[in-house]
Amino acid sequence: MSEPDSNQEARDRVLSLFREKESFLLSGHVRPDGDCVGGEAALASVLLAMGKQVTILNPDPPDPNFAFFTETLGFGVFEDGELPEHDVAVLLDISELSRCGELGTKIGEANSTKVVIDHHMHFGEDWWDESYVDVTASATGLLVCRIAKELGVELDLRGANAAYVALVCDTGWFKYSNTDAETLRVAGELVGLGVEPARVYDSLFQRDQPGQPMWLSGMLATAVYHADGKLVMFELPFADPFVTKNADSDPAMDVLRAVEGVEVVLFLRELADNTVKLSARSKTDYDVNALAREFGGGGHKKASGATIDGSLSEVRSKLLAAALPGFNAEVGGQR
Amino acid sequence: MSEPDSNQEARDRVLSLFREKESFLLSGHVRPDGDCVGGEAALASVLLAMGKQVTILNPDPPDPNFAFFTETLGFGVFEDGELPEHDVAVLLDISELSRCGELGTKIGEANSTKVVIDHHMHFGEDWWDESYVDVTASATGLLVCRIAKELGVELDLRGANAAYVALVCDTGWFKYSNTDAETLRVAGELVGLGVEPARVYDSLFQRDQPGQPMWLSGMLATAVYHADGKLVMFELPFADPFVTKNADSDPAMDVLRAVEGVEVVLFLRELADNTVKLSARSKTDYDVNALAREFGGGGHKKASGATIDGSLSEVRSKLLAAALPGFNAEVGGQR
Repeated sequence: MSEPDSNQEARDRVLSLFREKESFLLSGHVRPDGDCVGGEAALASVLLAMGKQVTILNPDPPDPNFAFFTETLGFGVFEDGELPEHDVAVLLDISELSRCGELGTKIGEANSTKVVIDHHMHFGEDWWDESYVDVTASATGLLVCRIAKELGVELDLRGANAAYVALVCDTGWFKYSNTDAETLRVAGELVGLGVEPARVYDSLFQRDQPGQPMWLSGMLATAVYHADGKLVMFELPFADPFVTKNADSDPAMDVLRAVEGVEVVLFLRELADNTVKLSARSKTDYDVNALAREFGGGGHKKASGATIDGSLSEVRSKLLAAALPGFNAEVGGQR
Repeated sequence: MSEPDSNQEARDRVLSLFREKESFLLSGHVRPDGDCVGGEAALASVLLAMGKQVTILNPDPPDPNFAFFTETLGFGVFEDGELPEHDVAVLLDISELSRCGELGTKIGEANSTKVVIDHHMHFGEDWWDESYVDVTASATGLLVCRIAKELGVELDLRGANAAYVALVCDTGWFKYSNTDAETLRVAGELVGLGVEPARVYDSLFQRDQPGQPMWLSGMLATAVYHADGKLVMFELPFADPFVTKNADSDPAMDVLRAVEGVEVVLFLRELADNTVKLSARSKTDYDVNALAREFGGGGHKKASGATIDGSLSEVRSKLLAAALPGFNAEVGGQR
């Protein structure tokens, strides 16, 4: 692992590159999220304001919900072939070229200066020429805002919207523990530049289908508590394929997680072919990865899944039998 | 309607009262919300730091979720009898004594200087001696933060947590259109004073009662779309008094607001005595304050309420008749 954070001297060298070079290629990781796309768009706005040439190229297209700031910037998707001519390649929100697909290989081979702007830990060899990294920053977009200030460039509205999206996407709309004083202060500055939080929220999160409230209602109606309220299980039986495919279970998951005392939520989505998809979430040390692995699945300790053969009632019983002893052991051992 | 905002001279007179007087009674409205309770606690912290005597007395107790900043401040509930001796009575987050129950009457009769700190419109006669009002402020808690600064008092952690809760409760955790640059900047300052957003979020929103998912399911099951999906109405019929009293309608409100195309959400909570409580929320320019005022209620353009006589089905029909023309006019006028 390399020294995670760039020192001020290293950061100043990045600023010098932005001042002195002419053409820039901005790229990010596969399935770019709000921080990646927002950071790219914000940096593009800064560089364009400085009269530079900018091309944005990612392994995948941005989410359509980001169109309000991406659509006028020409977000390209790398398929194959040659990269456009560029003096400096800037990789944002990622320091591993391997997470950029084929585009990463091409960037590595290109005859350009390589810059990384990121807030993640880096493992492995340094491959870049210069870096602007701070692993304590809540978002890559926050680093771009610092860069804009240090370059003396005020973000235009498009850039401010992009930076705001970067901040809210990586902090869970200012809810996660990485929401620090700087993040909120900068968010306030972006609102001062014209960002309208309610409109951003609408663009990102107020686009549910009209059926979603009913689907949520139906899923919540199946919720059953077990293990003294520490485990709650809910289901979506197979009925209408449209509903089975489109109904988002995350909102129901969030509602059940918010109940005091709930530690584990299990969601069973019945598919047409006598199989059931399990999604398991844990709020505590209860290891849902171990549970999912018993059924041939896996994931993380706090979020795992599996695809399980059987009818809904069969799978429900098998899962409960496997999941409940974990709570009993805890009760026996700790109380 | 009185001149809504206090001018700087009027505000300075309020600051002088805080500097010069010795004992303060802080009060708010019935069922005090996060902005009311948070504003009271933040102001109490400021006054206590200045060596003043402070009593907090409300018509109802604060929500237990606010305990992390209320429990050491002795939030009193007014039952009847006499008010404690006080030089100055400060009413926060409300300018209508009538919305403070019996406590309001007693405050009106007391031989003390009356101060209002509020961000709501006021209708009717001015009854106070001094006011610190700004109807453009996102929260009463924001006004308390301004007051703290103007008095040169830094909030302690309890006061900062309280002010933060005030801000997040009245801005929907920085999502509503009242989230302005000042709100986010001040939130950043509060985090700088030690507030931990993730912990505040857990304290406020991860403590639902086990019945909440079922209540949400039931409320969402009543949702009906009108006006081409621009209006959605949902209900909680009177059944179990426990449910009627405890079921939180905000989550259902949020779910319905998140549906693409929905502009207005109306919630009808049936009470025991053949009355219905209306909560109305607008995402657009549709003025739900005007709607609520037709039924003797009021609030803001985007969030209003009323208490309406009649059965659920009577009120439902009356409300629809009053609400729907607003959409037709818009359709006729703008398309």
